[in-house]
Amino acid sequence: MTQKTFRTVVPVAFGDVDYARILYYPRLFHYCHVVMERFFDESVGQPYVEVLRDRRIGFPTVHTEADYRRPMPYGEKLVFDFTVRALGTSSVSFRYVVSGESDGTARAEARSTVVCVDMDRFEKQPLPKDLRHAFAAYLEV
Amino acid sequence: MTQKTFRTVVPVAFGDVDYARILYYPRLFHYCHVVMERFFDESVGQPYVEVLRDRRIGFPTVHTEADYRRPMPYGEKLVFDFTVRALGTSSVSFRYVVSGESDGTARAEARSTVVCVDMDRFEKQPLPKDLRHAFAAYLEV
Amino acid sequence: MTQKTFRTVVPVAFGDVDYARILYYPRLFHYCHVVMERFFDESVGQPYVEVLRDRRIGFPTVHTEADYRRPMPYGEKLVFDFTVRALGTSSVSFRYVVSGESDGTARAEARSTVVCVDMDRFEKQPLPKDLRHAFAAYLEV
Amino acid sequence: MTQKTFRTVVPVAFGDVDYARILYYPRLFHYCHVVMERFFDESVGQPYVEVLRDRRIGFPTVHTEADYRRPMPYGEKLVFDFTVRALGTSSVSFRYVVSGESDGTARAEARSTVVCVDMDRFEKQPLPKDLRHAFAAYLEV
Repeated sequence: MTQKTFRTVVPVAFGDVDYARILYYPRLFHYCHVVMERFFDESVGQPYVEVLRDRRIGFPTVHTEADYRRPMPYGEKLVFDFTVRALGTSSVSFRYVVSGESDGTARAEARSTVVCVDMDRFEKQPLPKDLRHAFAAYLEV
Repeated sequence: MTQKTFRTVVPVAFGDVDYARILYYPRLFHYCHVVMERFFDESVGQPYVEVLRDRRIGFPTVHTEADYRRPMPYGEKLVFDFTVRALGTSSVSFRYVVSGESDGTARAEARSTVVCVDMDRFEKQPLPKDLRHAFAAYLEV
Repeated sequence: MTQKTFRTVVPVAFGDVDYARILYYPRLFHYCHVVMERFFDESVGQPYVEVLRDRRIGFPTVHTEADYRRPMPYGEKLVFDFTVRALGTSSVSFRYVVSGESDGTARAEARSTVVCVDMDRFEKQPLPKDLRHAFAAYLEV
Repeated sequence: MTQKTFRTVVPVAFGDVDYARILYYPRLFHYCHVVMERFFDESVGQPYVEVLRDRRIGFPTVHTEADYRRPMPYGEKLVFDFTVRALGTSSVSFRYVVSGESDGTARAEARSTVVCVDMDRFEKQPLPKDLRHAFAAYLEV
């Protein structure tokens, strides 16, 4: 069984750098969220907004972490390789491996754990089957 | 009758600059919003969140503009002088005059027009009396 | 002679909305800047970072304004139509007409004036010929 | 010997929430950076901008992580308790314990490791004595 990776590119924006002219480190997590939104659009096949607004299911982050390996300067196109590290009853853990398109070098890695909740009461609930299935295809083996 | 000005200071944050190491221009509007939130807290006497969440009143922006006069570099403490330019039945127009604390020079000026709406239907409604009264004290004469 | 429009799509991101769940109005200007960066990449044929870093030319914004016509909710894909309103010796004025991909309705329009500067001294200078030529193709007629 | 804690308050801003109307999780790290900047201003006694610009010393983040315990809704005033977890030759690790001013409950905890670098070459260097001394006063015992 082959494990799938969801790959997408996010360029470092002019306004997303800091005084050192490299990606302001909190914005790596914003880019990761954008990547997850594209994953829902392109791989799950249901826009994240529909999951939230129509199905009333949300995925608040309970833990996140990142290692920053090399600077991500303005103008670099960041390649994100997204996989699923672990799949629990109601939690999912994502991995984002980030490299620079210009030279292929490793730039950062972020990992986030989210929990499936009912958007109205913000209470934990089991992952719906279709989403579990969509995530499972990207589970690391 | 003296016109009042609401003054508050917002330092340019490390992560709010762009590649040129000066305030990324869209963030001036974010700082203006923060200033308006402080105005509700400190001068209106009702936190903006209570207006939105409890009274179901919102103030979406329908027009905004800004002139950038001198760079606002990282580390500068920006002095915002907030006044009310015009007060309509359901609209209010704000002015934010921005100077640098280090030397007192003019840095920018922003003007925004907001409209009072019912948060549930997003429909225009007259400004409530207490808020009209609070804004009127800062109306330019 | 036909006037060209540069069109590109920016989806409203999960983290770019405000308490009212619509695009936080300052972020429209960030999206406009992203559009301008794509214009350099795709139409000028030289990434904006090279203009800044290698040619030491920058375009600080001296004036910006926007009209917000209809809410831009989370999940909407915003269509940006970018044109050049005016072309001076050292200044350029851009227009961004924003509509919603879902229904084609007008959502917002932003206009910004930038000035060409030497990045080292931050002093005004004439637009270089190649950039003037690239902008002129998108000048409104 | 008593260990010191640097305490400061950051209100959740209107534009810093996400579709779920709670603090967009990447922005917790921005708030942490703002807290660190205030720490330099108020406790180190030297604005961070002077460290960067005049002394050419920077502190890029090499690792960061956060646990999110309870939602941080719009309007909550977040109390940040900042301490130093570890102090190496050229690295420092910070802890930010975040509680809600309204009820005192734990909301989040973030931890970041930064490395002292020469801003011109972006190379690791030992922490200067004065900064080491300033951090040591907040070292967890």
